[in-house]
Amino acid sequence: MSKRYSIGIDFGTQSGRVLLLDLDTGEQSPSTVIPYTSGVIDQRLPGTGEQLPPDWALQDPDDWTKVILDGVPECIRQSGVDATDIVGIGIDCTSCTVLPATANGQPLCSQTAWRGHKHAWPKLWKHHAAQPVADRLDEIAAESGEDFLQRYGGRISSEWYFPKLIEVWQEDRQVYDAMDGFYEAADWIVYWLTGLPIRQASTAGYKALWSPTDGLPSPEFFETAFPGFTRPAEKLGTEFAALGTRAGGLRTDLARRLGLGENVAVAVGNVDAFVSVPGAGVSDPGTFVIVIGTSICDMVIHPDEIRLPGITGVVQDGILPGTYGYEAGQAAVGDMLAWFVATIGGSATHEELEAQARQLAPGAAGLLALDWWNGNRTILADADLSGVIIGLTLHSSPAEIYRALLESIAFGSRRIMDNFEQHGMALTDIVACGGIAEKSPLTMQLLADTSGRPVSVPGTPDVPARGAALYGAVAAGTYQDIATAVRATKAPTGRRYEPNPAASSTYEQMYLIYRDLYETLGTSRADWLHGLKQIKREALQA
Amino acid sequence: MSKRYSIGIDFGTQSGRVLLLDLDTGEQSPSTVIPYTSGVIDQRLPGTGEQLPPDWALQDPDDWTKVILDGVPECIRQSGVDATDIVGIGIDCTSCTVLPATANGQPLCSQTAWRGHKHAWPKLWKHHAAQPVADRLDEIAAESGEDFLQRYGGRISSEWYFPKLIEVWQEDRQVYDAMDGFYEAADWIVYWLTGLPIRQASTAGYKALWSPTDGLPSPEFFETAFPGFTRPAEKLGTEFAALGTRAGGLRTDLARRLGLGENVAVAVGNVDAFVSVPGAGVSDPGTFVIVIGTSICDMVIHPDEIRLPGITGVVQDGILPGTYGYEAGQAAVGDMLAWFVATIGGSATHEELEAQARQLAPGAAGLLALDWWNGNRTILADADLSGVIIGLTLHSSPAEIYRALLESIAFGSRRIMDNFEQHGMALTDIVACGGIAEKSPLTMQLLADTSGRPVSVPGTPDVPARGAALYGAVAAGTYQDIATAVRATKAPTGRRYEPNPAASSTYEQMYLIYRDLYETLGTSRADWLHGLKQIKREALQA
Repeated sequence: MSKRYSIGIDFGTQSGRVLLLDLDTGEQSPSTVIPYTSGVIDQRLPGTGEQLPPDWALQDPDDWTKVILDGVPECIRQSGVDATDIVGIGIDCTSCTVLPATANGQPLCSQTAWRGHKHAWPKLWKHHAAQPVADRLDEIAAESGEDFLQRYGGRISSEWYFPKLIEVWQEDRQVYDAMDGFYEAADWIVYWLTGLPIRQASTAGYKALWSPTDGLPSPEFFETAFPGFTRPAEKLGTEFAALGTRAGGLRTDLARRLGLGENVAVAVGNVDAFVSVPGAGVSDPGTFVIVIGTSICDMVIHPDEIRLPGITGVVQDGILPGTYGYEAGQAAVGDMLAWFVATIGGSATHEELEAQARQLAPGAAGLLALDWWNGNRTILADADLSGVIIGLTLHSSPAEIYRALLESIAFGSRRIMDNFEQHGMALTDIVACGGIAEKSPLTMQLLADTSGRPVSVPGTPDVPARGAALYGAVAAGTYQDIATAVRATKAPTGRRYEPNPAASSTYEQMYLIYRDLYETLGTSRADWLHGLKQIKREALQA
Repeated sequence: MSKRYSIGIDFGTQSGRVLLLDLDTGEQSPSTVIPYTSGVIDQRLPGTGEQLPPDWALQDPDDWTKVILDGVPECIRQSGVDATDIVGIGIDCTSCTVLPATANGQPLCSQTAWRGHKHAWPKLWKHHAAQPVADRLDEIAAESGEDFLQRYGGRISSEWYFPKLIEVWQEDRQVYDAMDGFYEAADWIVYWLTGLPIRQASTAGYKALWSPTDGLPSPEFFETAFPGFTRPAEKLGTEFAALGTRAGGLRTDLARRLGLGENVAVAVGNVDAFVSVPGAGVSDPGTFVIVIGTSICDMVIHPDEIRLPGITGVVQDGILPGTYGYEAGQAAVGDMLAWFVATIGGSATHEELEAQARQLAPGAAGLLALDWWNGNRTILADADLSGVIIGLTLHSSPAEIYRALLESIAFGSRRIMDNFEQHGMALTDIVACGGIAEKSPLTMQLLADTSGRPVSVPGTPDVPARGAALYGAVAAGTYQDIATAVRATKAPTGRRYEPNPAASSTYEQMYLIYRDLYETLGTSRADWLHGLKQIKREALQA
């Protein structure tokens, strides 16, 4: 029997990476990493040099295509795989990263006439300039009691599709009128690969307020918030394919250039966080999947739709087709630790602090923190909260504070797991991937100790690209669905962390205090942190 | 008219200093500083080399006499003053620093037979090994509803006279029996100067639970707490002279050795913090005097006795004869800032952090702290509280956190002032002295801005030694009382800080949050910080 391979391509914030997955053995090739030439464009618009306003973050679509054009042939060459054995391609991308394109799929910003329009460029997920739009949508949705809001924990993020689209509509109507569609980057990349404008249901659900049963929020809702904006589906479309669907084959010229056959199946796009679920070998409910890096994205799949507060979103078929995908998260994780090392921790590195922090006994520092350095994503969904440390003494050391921050990350995850369990979703174990899962064994042990659940870290790197490749295999028909693909190719667990009973017992006591502190500073006395934020705003304006 | 001078000698923790005060002009000489040879003895007992237990801190009385023998002649020589113009000597010392002495006034530790007994040595104010004794006294006093406890904010400190005395009684009965008296160092130094065992009323009131109207707590109280300890006055005596009283003249041999006349009046002893009130030129109620260094000692004088919670103590004639002296304080100030610089602030110095913090606008960091790094001294009198910072973000800088700590010191003082005012003691202005008053203009400005009161810092250094010299002048009869002495010699204000209305307005908003946070973490939800401390104790024992 000949070999079968699928290509997985993961488009990140600073670079893209390509790997090949052996569909019979589950082994994956080393990844080929192609850095983006323009990276994150947050200072000046390429070409004109125009200074970008605060909170802007753009990308260049040429950086994405370069990952494919350079990375795919290089990865095939290095792996020594026979290109004719490649049956599928899957991709994943950051989200909600969106761009305007014309009817033939060309990005507006690639056209000379539009390059000087900053709204013609792809807006990166962390472009936050549409916050006023999101605030207005939130306000109207709350006022009119829109049912869809319950799927999103009660709040629309400024990072999502409609805030970014309406920002274009408000600020550059020429760009708005000139675009044929406003595409998720994951969908646009598939469009570029296949020549077919096939959008998928996952980002439509998580980022564009769409559901298979209810469709989009009503035109009246948008009209009330933004008089004149009456056709929400105009640039989005109304048809969304399930994950794992074959979008099409490769464009003829592109297939030739990449050295691949035209019959290679291209799967519809995916989101980097969500595709980590199959990438990490998870296809069943009951597992709490944590992608832990700069921030945390938590994912749970469940056969039923359960309405629960304090999540980022629940989307039918949004993570694995046939299940409901639940998303939650923590806003500052690697960010917070990097802040500590750069600002507070003296000259010690992460590695040194982790090594020192490991020597400390649970509870021995008397410290407790709330990891709200960048607000609280879930379960409170409150960007105006901020970080807290209590229990400081004249003997508190940098390693003790560092450990308290790691514990705050773990307690925050426990709080989110509690929320799921309180609403009937039992969680038996944790699978963690992402930079911190690989770099910080202490954080993994703390996740186990604070939650009383075992934590597994996949033994393979490049989890998102692996997940994308699995969807490529489903699109190619190698496997009938993603769950089958996961089971057939499951990679060995790299490391497993069992809860330590003594540590768990101490952390259970600390968690009782944590819960109280969380509820008080996050809800009943949220006026304290909100007040400080308001005073800060006024002070900075004065 | 010939000149008149008084000598002031201030016995600190690491050194003593001597100055001469011109009683006609109020000008003071530079001080002569004599470091202690043995300093703080907290590792090994001199002579035997015995390892001292944790929380022990001793001193050597030879270090004190050396300050007099070397410092007084040197100070007279350097100042060029005619020694025959010197009319008085006043001294002040740390408190409660106490030592056992025989009937002729010789320290027990100076005698060969007793040098190997660690309890024979002077116990420094910060000797904390008698905490179990203090806890037991507190417990019994609370159970039996002892009225005297109300004069001390409801709590007996382990640093005070009876915990230290009973510690000797419990642990080395030989030393206890061999001593004729257990003396405050301030009283013992006067004894050594004059040959007369005259004790003063200030430390009897603040540290030995005595009052002129009620005397000592009953023998039954002590007997209940420590069966067998039935004569509390045995080593303390029952007669206590008012501050400013002439204890006597100099011993003949000592007068000759120092080049002074025997008729030079020696005033009864004083406490370094309390003597700072006249030293700083304060003799009237309505002024909040802050001695701000490692920690803060606050003092207020008032014509009446007012029972109020949340003070360290109120003592009739305890600070200025004829008034009631109120003491309060904050437990960690310079300590906390030193911790920040050593542990957290990277490589920046205090001076650099202060300079950067000065550039920041009030409220612009969004941070708020509770300065409980060493517990809360007043108004909560709770050693099991600990430090808190809220409002941290990914952009919080070391200078912002440093400023938040300075603000927490100022808010803590405001809280204490509020407590006095709520009980009918109006406070119109602040006088601050001590290391931080001289070194941190920003802290002084913050005291003014957060309280809405002007802050004055005396223009003369060595405020305690100056105050001691003023009492020497009263003992010599140069002035009829200390208030007259203060007014006659008042030194010019060095710096004055007026409240900035815009800053005060911002801090008023922040103070509302501070008050809430203080009450919640300090009282209604003190179980959080207490719980963390308890978990810490258990973790360290495990």
